[in-house]
Amino acid sequence: MDIVTKSLNYLKSLTAETISFARSGHTGSALGASSILFALFHNHLQFDCTGNNWPNRDRFVLSAGHSSALLYSLFYMFGYPITINDLKNFRRYGSKTPGHPEYGVTEGVETTTGPLGQGVATAVGLALAAEKMNAISPNLFNNYTYVYAGDGCLMEGVAQEACSLAGKLCLKNLILLYDDNDVTLDGDKSISNNENTVKKFEAMGWDTIVVEKGNDYNECSKAIARAKTNHRPTLILFRTIIGIGTTKQGTCGVHGYPLPETELKTFKQNMEITDDFFVPDDVLAFCREATEKNNKLISKWNEFYEKDKANIDKALKQNSRYNLTDLCKKISTANPEITGRDVSNIILNELYNLFPFFGGSADLASSTKAFIKNVPEYEEDALSGNNIRFGVREHAMGAVANGIALYYKFLAFDSTFVSFSNYMIPALRLRAMMGIPVLSIMTHDSINIGEDGPTHQPIEQIPQMRSIVGLTVFRPATIAEVMAGYKYFVTKQKPTVLALTKTKISNPKYSTVDKADKGGYIIYETEKAPTIEIIATGTEVYLAIEVATKLEKYGARVISMPCESIFDKQTENYKSKILLENPKLKVAIEATNDNVWYKYIGENGLLININSYQHSGNGKEVYEKAGFESERIVKEIREKLKKVN
Amino acid sequence: MDIVTKSLNYLKSLTAETISFARSGHTGSALGASSILFALFHNHLQFDCTGNNWPNRDRFVLSAGHSSALLYSLFYMFGYPITINDLKNFRRYGSKTPGHPEYGVTEGVETTTGPLGQGVATAVGLALAAEKMNAISPNLFNNYTYVYAGDGCLMEGVAQEACSLAGKLCLKNLILLYDDNDVTLDGDKSISNNENTVKKFEAMGWDTIVVEKGNDYNECSKAIARAKTNHRPTLILFRTIIGIGTTKQGTCGVHGYPLPETELKTFKQNMEITDDFFVPDDVLAFCREATEKNNKLISKWNEFYEKDKANIDKALKQNSRYNLTDLCKKISTANPEITGRDVSNIILNELYNLFPFFGGSADLASSTKAFIKNVPEYEEDALSGNNIRFGVREHAMGAVANGIALYYKFLAFDSTFVSFSNYMIPALRLRAMMGIPVLSIMTHDSINIGEDGPTHQPIEQIPQMRSIVGLTVFRPATIAEVMAGYKYFVTKQKPTVLALTKTKISNPKYSTVDKADKGGYIIYETEKAPTIEIIATGTEVYLAIEVATKLEKYGARVISMPCESIFDKQTENYKSKILLENPKLKVAIEATNDNVWYKYIGENGLLININSYQHSGNGKEVYEKAGFESERIVKEIREKLKKVN
Repeated sequence: MDIVTKSLNYLKSLTAETISFARSGHTGSALGASSILFALFHNHLQFDCTGNNWPNRDRFVLSAGHSSALLYSLFYMFGYPITINDLKNFRRYGSKTPGHPEYGVTEGVETTTGPLGQGVATAVGLALAAEKMNAISPNLFNNYTYVYAGDGCLMEGVAQEACSLAGKLCLKNLILLYDDNDVTLDGDKSISNNENTVKKFEAMGWDTIVVEKGNDYNECSKAIARAKTNHRPTLILFRTIIGIGTTKQGTCGVHGYPLPETELKTFKQNMEITDDFFVPDDVLAFCREATEKNNKLISKWNEFYEKDKANIDKALKQNSRYNLTDLCKKISTANPEITGRDVSNIILNELYNLFPFFGGSADLASSTKAFIKNVPEYEEDALSGNNIRFGVREHAMGAVANGIALYYKFLAFDSTFVSFSNYMIPALRLRAMMGIPVLSIMTHDSINIGEDGPTHQPIEQIPQMRSIVGLTVFRPATIAEVMAGYKYFVTKQKPTVLALTKTKISNPKYSTVDKADKGGYIIYETEKAPTIEIIATGTEVYLAIEVATKLEKYGARVISMPCESIFDKQTENYKSKILLENPKLKVAIEATNDNVWYKYIGENGLLININSYQHSGNGKEVYEKAGFESERIVKEIREKLKKVN
Repeated sequence: MDIVTKSLNYLKSLTAETISFARSGHTGSALGASSILFALFHNHLQFDCTGNNWPNRDRFVLSAGHSSALLYSLFYMFGYPITINDLKNFRRYGSKTPGHPEYGVTEGVETTTGPLGQGVATAVGLALAAEKMNAISPNLFNNYTYVYAGDGCLMEGVAQEACSLAGKLCLKNLILLYDDNDVTLDGDKSISNNENTVKKFEAMGWDTIVVEKGNDYNECSKAIARAKTNHRPTLILFRTIIGIGTTKQGTCGVHGYPLPETELKTFKQNMEITDDFFVPDDVLAFCREATEKNNKLISKWNEFYEKDKANIDKALKQNSRYNLTDLCKKISTANPEITGRDVSNIILNELYNLFPFFGGSADLASSTKAFIKNVPEYEEDALSGNNIRFGVREHAMGAVANGIALYYKFLAFDSTFVSFSNYMIPALRLRAMMGIPVLSIMTHDSINIGEDGPTHQPIEQIPQMRSIVGLTVFRPATIAEVMAGYKYFVTKQKPTVLALTKTKISNPKYSTVDKADKGGYIIYETEKAPTIEIIATGTEVYLAIEVATKLEKYGARVISMPCESIFDKQTENYKSKILLENPKLKVAIEATNDNVWYKYIGENGLLININSYQHSGNGKEVYEKAGFESERIVKEIREKLKKVN
């Protein structure tokens, strides 16, 4: 038996027994794709398994994340820090080998995958960032981006949007390895899909290659070699047999089928393997040829890097000093009244001089003002650009931005209306899970956008984003609060959302960046000692101040709370200074359907919010008719006061 | 001037002045598409403008909803109940002519549109339901489905998924009118898109027609006539000039450009129109030819309908009697312990005998058990089927299900894991806005699904769905509660979500359908009078009961609250009987990141929830390590009791 066949057999055996031992996992595609990925790892992928994240490594994304056992087995064989013991702990609590690949858990995993389609779209972002770095330093950055995907991934709209964008941007380093095994979870692919995938990708501006024998190592390797020479993104369609070598091969029954002990034994015997969880030295040596070759590349690269370091550091602005508080003062002095979206544009452009921002908008840059001035657009023929034209593709935008942030040092940003953030929720969740630096600049934050009607008036979107664990959402009321949002993002470099107004905001006396940094602070208080506490966010802060002045005789305090999750993290001491102790009444005002405010006002508090769809109409009118009008709120407060006291 | 040209001129004039008068709206595509839609309405569309919703009317969906002024102008000219005064009130609060078409607000609007792409996907649902009805009663149901879409709509993944499905299902009555004006909001289409749309649709199994002169009425009409004879869905690509006749024609500047008064004057003068908001009698008479032709069709149809009424009623099960409480008893006696997804399957199949359910799953039917037994799949060659194989296309599934519910009497259903509900949020929101009967059967409702890891463990998804105004979300703990969810759906016929367990549930003594109907009820109480109140949902109810038994010495009450929004609607009297008055401690237990529970437990209550991503691992282990373990909760409660007392 030749060494390639032997190696492939051991890879399949290791993969199958990893799943079988866990009694849980997805044998089907993990076996079906073994030849494709072994050819990739052995002959093509320039990987770094030393744990140093070589910046110019080829990126590999397992978009069909359920095939993870194959990836972990490859990692073991090619010298990544994965042990046989890790494979035995596949899918066990706290292991390095979770059910789906998780970024930050397993060395070598470039992005968390599992929700189908996301990996493809994230790979487009990795490829886009690679092209950008290639434009900055062509000799140091010239890696490929490989993504492995199945039918499920390609049926997802997020992948379709992203592939269309990749075609438009002509991302030549991107190679999509499509495992066309004709089977999905519920049955043959033909029950739900009869597309001509090759033709579809050609229509999107891709090169395509079809490998009829997708379980043949040499054919797979040749196709990948050819794809690397293309000048456009390439789809390689591999016709494979799902679960090859098992009794259920070629059927949907093998998708989530850990081989039973007896079948596993036969499966291994057919490949002349008797050892359990074992790979012989000659196979390991064969694999490690690739590892050594790559390690040499890395050493060589590191030498070159020193020569171009200054250039790269300059392009990525790695040595910046800044004082955002001063910058904020400058801006608010120059703009006593300005819309949230406009002040965001000013700040973004100032910070662009200090930080490596890279992003764009989903065909709304002219409205959300999320663009860098005086630089060209990002296009295939203008790689020095910094504004990505994502097109009307919000979902892909979210995932592509994730890929950009994952690639190398970029601070990614994306942008749309708050209302359409709900097209991006799956991508927002994944970036929150990974904790990567992507800023979402979202505008038109309130029902007061008016005439476009209920479809465009966000009510649930802000609560939905706040519900995402690890996503920090700001709804700023003042210029200082917008700055605090940006400050949080550039200093923490964690996923952040700014929900900005289309209407004018200002900067009341008590609003400073330092205060806003705390998530919540006192922005107004009546002269009379307060007995009423009013929490508000965004435009409603101005309304709350108006209400408070009308409640002078009771005494009222207004707390602006642009980010309640940051406020929650403050010391008890700080919080007790901001929140009143035993006020007569606690009120929260926000033009959303968020219940989070009950956390502060309790079951006896008064929540002025919005829980029905509004009409199309003049913004101010819509806002007032929905109850956001000071006289009406004062009346409600007075009535509530009578009840509670 | 011939009557066609004259009519078109008046249509354009009326459209432009409607937008101009409102000083807000989208002139670009509204003018650019005028020839296409005038040809459609005059020569092809079998519409019913009498307000009786003729079941066999052709469905027309304006997916590019921002072109609404054109639609309203057409409605006026073709005799729908829209007046000149309504046009003058375009985009005004409470008018019949809102900024984007809204279902239920304007007669003739088949679905709410605005968020791009949704209209295309909903039209696929309308077309699918039409094919289904055609199979039931071919002579009575044979309408066409037309959808008007721009570049923005077709870039959206939801539209791509839906078009792929339409190709697979060979929905021959579907005709997509693609307004290829080469311009998007931010600039020329080429800045973000260079697809070959015709080739792409061919790859998805569509017929295609290209109309080079998309602003030529006759060319438009001929193409539509040809499309009607096709045996597959048809894309007609019309090359048009956006904002034709204005000074900014052919540029993105005209997208949201209400013509200023002077330009409007010139614009009208160029077409020899001097009157304001006026359409002459000869033009109206020309339009009303179509109206009269259609009214005759309707009369004829109504005669035929009487003959086939019995057949249709039988197929749509319109005369059912049922007793769901008895059915529930039968099921729970036969299945003392059963998973949420399995009991859902039993109930769905029982109810299928009584109600016209029509739906399917996104490649997860075998796991979510959302399928009708013993009927064939829905396929182009098996139209009698009832299980739609949506493929791995959750977003389109949500919108397609909306279209099915909008078509005619069907109770639509869709299905995926709770975790992937976030791919469907935009479609869920639109169905909530429209209040239409779609049931989402979602399973794997908890982090205890285990090995698949954090991507598959829902934490935020249930709060996100609950936040949607008008979407009723059940997270049932018992068999009776699952039944209550189904009961709510079939009786109210409003958008409903069931978040079901993969693990076993039972039916504790105090759980009945009548009680569960109230949204929240007492499911357990210690013998000792309770001083602690514990609210829980889903699997956590069993845990709460365990905790309560361990708190016997304090006395504890467990409230199962499968649907807090329904509980909120109960009488104060009922609620006061369920909730304790001044308990020592209020506790809520739910394995989600929802803050809604503070509404009941207040700022001093104890919320046992989950606000970090968990690991891949054994389900029980994941659940317990996340804090869902009775001893640990009892300890937390004891500590909290010390603090609050």
